[in-house]
Amino acid sequence: MKKIKVGIIGANGYTGYELLKILAGHDGVEVAHAVSRSNAGASVGALYPALAAAYPCLKFSDADTDKAAKDCTLVFTALPHAAAAETGGKLYDKGVTVIDLSADFRYDDIPLYERTYNVTHPRPKLNAKAVYGLTEINRAQITALKGTPAIIGNPGCYTTSCILPLYPLLKAGLLEPHGIVIDAKSGASGAGRRAEADFGFCEIEGNFKAYGVAVHRHTSEMEEKLSLGQKDFKLCFVPHLLPVKRGILSTVYTDVKPKVSADSIADCLTAAYGKEKFVEVLPEGSYPTLNRVTGSNVCSIGFKFDARTGKVIIISCLDNLIKGASGQAVQNMNILLGFDESKGLSVTGNHL
Amino acid sequence: MKKIKVGIIGANGYTGYELLKILAGHDGVEVAHAVSRSNAGASVGALYPALAAAYPCLKFSDADTDKAAKDCTLVFTALPHAAAAETGGKLYDKGVTVIDLSADFRYDDIPLYERTYNVTHPRPKLNAKAVYGLTEINRAQITALKGTPAIIGNPGCYTTSCILPLYPLLKAGLLEPHGIVIDAKSGASGAGRRAEADFGFCEIEGNFKAYGVAVHRHTSEMEEKLSLGQKDFKLCFVPHLLPVKRGILSTVYTDVKPKVSADSIADCLTAAYGKEKFVEVLPEGSYPTLNRVTGSNVCSIGFKFDARTGKVIIISCLDNLIKGASGQAVQNMNILLGFDESKGLSVTGNHL
Amino acid sequence: MKKIKVGIIGANGYTGYELLKILAGHDGVEVAHAVSRSNAGASVGALYPALAAAYPCLKFSDADTDKAAKDCTLVFTALPHAAAAETGGKLYDKGVTVIDLSADFRYDDIPLYERTYNVTHPRPKLNAKAVYGLTEINRAQITALKGTPAIIGNPGCYTTSCILPLYPLLKAGLLEPHGIVIDAKSGASGAGRRAEADFGFCEIEGNFKAYGVAVHRHTSEMEEKLSLGQKDFKLCFVPHLLPVKRGILSTVYTDVKPKVSADSIADCLTAAYGKEKFVEVLPEGSYPTLNRVTGSNVCSIGFKFDARTGKVIIISCLDNLIKGASGQAVQNMNILLGFDESKGLSVTGNHL
Amino acid sequence: MKKIKVGIIGANGYTGYELLKILAGHDGVEVAHAVSRSNAGASVGALYPALAAAYPCLKFSDADTDKAAKDCTLVFTALPHAAAAETGGKLYDKGVTVIDLSADFRYDDIPLYERTYNVTHPRPKLNAKAVYGLTEINRAQITALKGTPAIIGNPGCYTTSCILPLYPLLKAGLLEPHGIVIDAKSGASGAGRRAEADFGFCEIEGNFKAYGVAVHRHTSEMEEKLSLGQKDFKLCFVPHLLPVKRGILSTVYTDVKPKVSADSIADCLTAAYGKEKFVEVLPEGSYPTLNRVTGSNVCSIGFKFDARTGKVIIISCLDNLIKGASGQAVQNMNILLGFDESKGLSVTGNHL
Repeated sequence: MKKIKVGIIGANGYTGYELLKILAGHDGVEVAHAVSRSNAGASVGALYPALAAAYPCLKFSDADTDKAAKDCTLVFTALPHAAAAETGGKLYDKGVTVIDLSADFRYDDIPLYERTYNVTHPRPKLNAKAVYGLTEINRAQITALKGTPAIIGNPGCYTTSCILPLYPLLKAGLLEPHGIVIDAKSGASGAGRRAEADFGFCEIEGNFKAYGVAVHRHTSEMEEKLSLGQKDFKLCFVPHLLPVKRGILSTVYTDVKPKVSADSIADCLTAAYGKEKFVEVLPEGSYPTLNRVTGSNVCSIGFKFDARTGKVIIISCLDNLIKGASGQAVQNMNILLGFDESKGLSVTGNHL
Repeated sequence: MKKIKVGIIGANGYTGYELLKILAGHDGVEVAHAVSRSNAGASVGALYPALAAAYPCLKFSDADTDKAAKDCTLVFTALPHAAAAETGGKLYDKGVTVIDLSADFRYDDIPLYERTYNVTHPRPKLNAKAVYGLTEINRAQITALKGTPAIIGNPGCYTTSCILPLYPLLKAGLLEPHGIVIDAKSGASGAGRRAEADFGFCEIEGNFKAYGVAVHRHTSEMEEKLSLGQKDFKLCFVPHLLPVKRGILSTVYTDVKPKVSADSIADCLTAAYGKEKFVEVLPEGSYPTLNRVTGSNVCSIGFKFDARTGKVIIISCLDNLIKGASGQAVQNMNILLGFDESKGLSVTGNHL
Repeated sequence: MKKIKVGIIGANGYTGYELLKILAGHDGVEVAHAVSRSNAGASVGALYPALAAAYPCLKFSDADTDKAAKDCTLVFTALPHAAAAETGGKLYDKGVTVIDLSADFRYDDIPLYERTYNVTHPRPKLNAKAVYGLTEINRAQITALKGTPAIIGNPGCYTTSCILPLYPLLKAGLLEPHGIVIDAKSGASGAGRRAEADFGFCEIEGNFKAYGVAVHRHTSEMEEKLSLGQKDFKLCFVPHLLPVKRGILSTVYTDVKPKVSADSIADCLTAAYGKEKFVEVLPEGSYPTLNRVTGSNVCSIGFKFDARTGKVIIISCLDNLIKGASGQAVQNMNILLGFDESKGLSVTGNHL
Repeated sequence: MKKIKVGIIGANGYTGYELLKILAGHDGVEVAHAVSRSNAGASVGALYPALAAAYPCLKFSDADTDKAAKDCTLVFTALPHAAAAETGGKLYDKGVTVIDLSADFRYDDIPLYERTYNVTHPRPKLNAKAVYGLTEINRAQITALKGTPAIIGNPGCYTTSCILPLYPLLKAGLLEPHGIVIDAKSGASGAGRRAEADFGFCEIEGNFKAYGVAVHRHTSEMEEKLSLGQKDFKLCFVPHLLPVKRGILSTVYTDVKPKVSADSIADCLTAAYGKEKFVEVLPEGSYPTLNRVTGSNVCSIGFKFDARTGKVIIISCLDNLIKGASGQAVQNMNILLGFDESKGLSVTGNHL
């Protein structure tokens, strides 16, 4: 079978790296364009020797949307906010399907996006056509775009880890929507490949810290997706930086509605995800660890029903570069291009 | 000046190691006994080469309370629960001051202790004489015991990090006492020196997990110290295991009482700790990191007043082996033996 | 196509884990037996949650060579020395192909093996039939056993990293055989899954040390394979323990024969490995890093021709659990069972 | 006693950080100037919160040699090569004692320095007055400068770890001077505080690599100091980057002269260092580990006499920021200012 050609714009960053890595094991597509301005002309293997054998001939190229559009059926954009919508928009205008890993096409509420990211949205009308790419929740909408040019706003890493467990529970009315606290912890690759002294090895190794305390941008993305029409739905979200390369563990604290039990929580999550390949629900009292999910496209969810305090504590883990970014992007690509949804994606984690 | 002789029983574990390390830089005392049954006869430097130059002649000895009592003015007990009270009790009976690093002398409420640790307290009457060694809060009571045999129940590591910020705020009535959530993260030395495959390097490196979710023993210790007479005061406490050697960062989420502002929080904490050498209060919106406190006896506290959700988020950091254990024990020893309270203890952290 | 059934005896250790992980992505075989005495009855996912989704039904079973022989075409033995030969021998006697990951079938010289491992070889006659499974060097011998019961002595991790570059260079007479120094560094998984305090996280993180200085057992394995008939061929080999989970980097220092140049070294290595998928030779002056090879079955080799000192310095990297153990075992399995040699094995490393 | 005022120029880097940390515990001097152009005006605690409590009032200032010279008796220069000699020279001209942590004043042979660092030495005449600050070897020369303005060329980190064991052994004629191989491994702080993506956490964590293979600049420094007048003395030196924050372990391979034994090696090293506080010689067959020395000013030396290959293998460990840089600088300062040589310096390592 002839391979479908895809492109990656912003291929030198860590989500770009992960896309290249995943697609190296996907025999239905060929990476025909890997754009990186700062590395244009260099081989992929020069920047990432681990990819050299898989991509012996691929070189980073300079930005050229005409060429990308001519050659590629689908393009992943891994660019800074606003720049992504501009480039992605141009590609879409030329008939290319775009899976955007920035925040540009994630929001329904454009003023909320604009306040959160402090930019003017370059393509507000196009945004109305975009589908939020949280696959397990929006699969029907994504599938509906199969075979036609589409725009997918691929979800944020923290947001994926939190929306997956909270969405079905809130929709079923099992949780008090007020007062939800999310204490999240992410590995350092979440910050991308940065030339900053503060992201140097000696600053992060052996260290741990909170950042963006109650002001992180993913808060508004989660609030929009989880409000379910309710005004003034607010989350208290505090991310922390772990001294690990990959992985997110989010600990969610919520009050339950009266008469809710451990069983009703378990039943609701199982009804939502029992047949899903990439969302795993553990029995009450079992909790996922980072090393269960790193390297896989799985979001693993455990919970504790704490009768003593009337709270449900949810632990949700995923690999920020895979289910939290590039893996979910490939999952969406698989649907849009007609492949098996799990093609090229693993359920097995890197325990070691 | 002649040095005062002290002993350490359970000297081979990590709190024992840290006591030896701190006391190597304290010129007022001499470690005359270092008891370790499993290493009896071996030199301290054989187990911990980093201490060899500081203790060229010290050998671990077998347990002998008579000899310890004869030679030492003060003994640190770093033993398992119940065993600590038994050994510490015998030493106290012989006139020795005991600083116990287990939970045995931390509780006022003996049934609560017994339920929590699932043991019968070996010395309930003696427990009534013990002082809870959270130095900044109980300094007067500790000082009152100066020069006489005393029993100190040295606080737990997580508890120290949480009680220090919460005690003055709850006492001043600034916080809603219900619904407090504590999401705590600790380095691996908190589990001690263990011969278990699950604590092996390959199981912890690159990994992160919650454990003891809503059932950790430090919960009841914190609840007793923070209830301030209020019935049914309950905390939701979830600890996590960080892939670092040392340090605790606790993120505390609380609702504030009406009319409480960022300033009232700051003023209350500053009033409590502004003159303290080992408790540092940062301006609102600044947060401590692990590498500010590791290596030091400092508990560093930051907070965010989140008007949007009506919550105060407190970040509290300390070194679990120092302010969370052996450093605070030496701080208490200094008071009891009449040294400057900060002797041998550092305010400077190991950024690198 | 019907899958071929294979077994793993000693499946709970880290090489067992890695076999399970690799075979989860190999669609030609099914793991029908996973033996672990200490975990018998438990599901694979209980010990390794990262494997739970890939092996939803597989449980560890107790040792039963009759049953293993009845059900499996091929068995991997990951057992302690001597025990491996005994169990592997029984399986072979019943017509099963055995790939043994211990040292028991690696040596031609049984007295050398017995001196090195301080045991009596349980099956010396059987040893004569075994083939040393360094695939790139012994491919013809391994291929000759395709379709018949076979015994493969799968090479050691350090030895694979050193023999691959040194064998062709020594065979071509480019190096002075005397005075070769190998300074090797391995991640902690090389020591296996151990319940020992010395392998605890706090003992290894941030630490680095030499061990087995000039007395490591892999020395004799390398000397046997590299002596090429020369008496008194001796290597100076010093391994070190890196604070990483996986990967070996060996730095080899050798004197070159007169008139040898950088080009002759490069030509010799390229002639040996230019067409190999899993051995990569870098241009002179380029060196592999651990993160190029971890996660892959690749041994990557770089070198420097140092005219100033007359030495060639070779840097050789591989993943100790993959090319250094379980990956090479699967490579050999693929040949023996008639699959494509690279099936289930990756050339792409885990840069992140 | 009034404190002596000292300055640090280039105080924001990691050696500057370590000087500030050590001097915070030294009650004989006061850091009156901490120069950092890029951080001028900021408090030391803003860049390094771990130092905030120790230096509540100290701010980084802009470069001003007049002011530094006016206020300080002694200045540490931690600047790039050539810039260090220029600034240090100006200070010396004004009567200030300079301890320079760059390579500018380490060499006797100026053309060798200029070839190695590819610069023209700005102050060749002044260089002739400088003393190489390897304290244990050049103590007499350093002591001779006590009380007068002096220039100390503080040794490199790798060089200190290698010269300390090799100097007495070569001087005593116990080693073959040809063919010495040094395989050294350093923590990431050796590269300083860098804003480069290649030094980011995700690039170094879990990774390991050789760099500067046979071309590292410390080679010529070691060759000059160890040649002992012998022409064409050449070392083969290969450094590697460890995923740890601090510490160097150098593994040295040398052939011994005929009739040399383990005892003669031990005797020679003990004669040289038996009375030294900061150089530790272990019995033959015992080897130091990084965590014995990190945090201390100790160089710990072990060795193996390998009769099988006729080689002595030396393992030498130190903390690159302390004995390999700032600690040795303070040791030299103590001599020059008349303090006890060990003041402010620790023999105890950070096992944890």
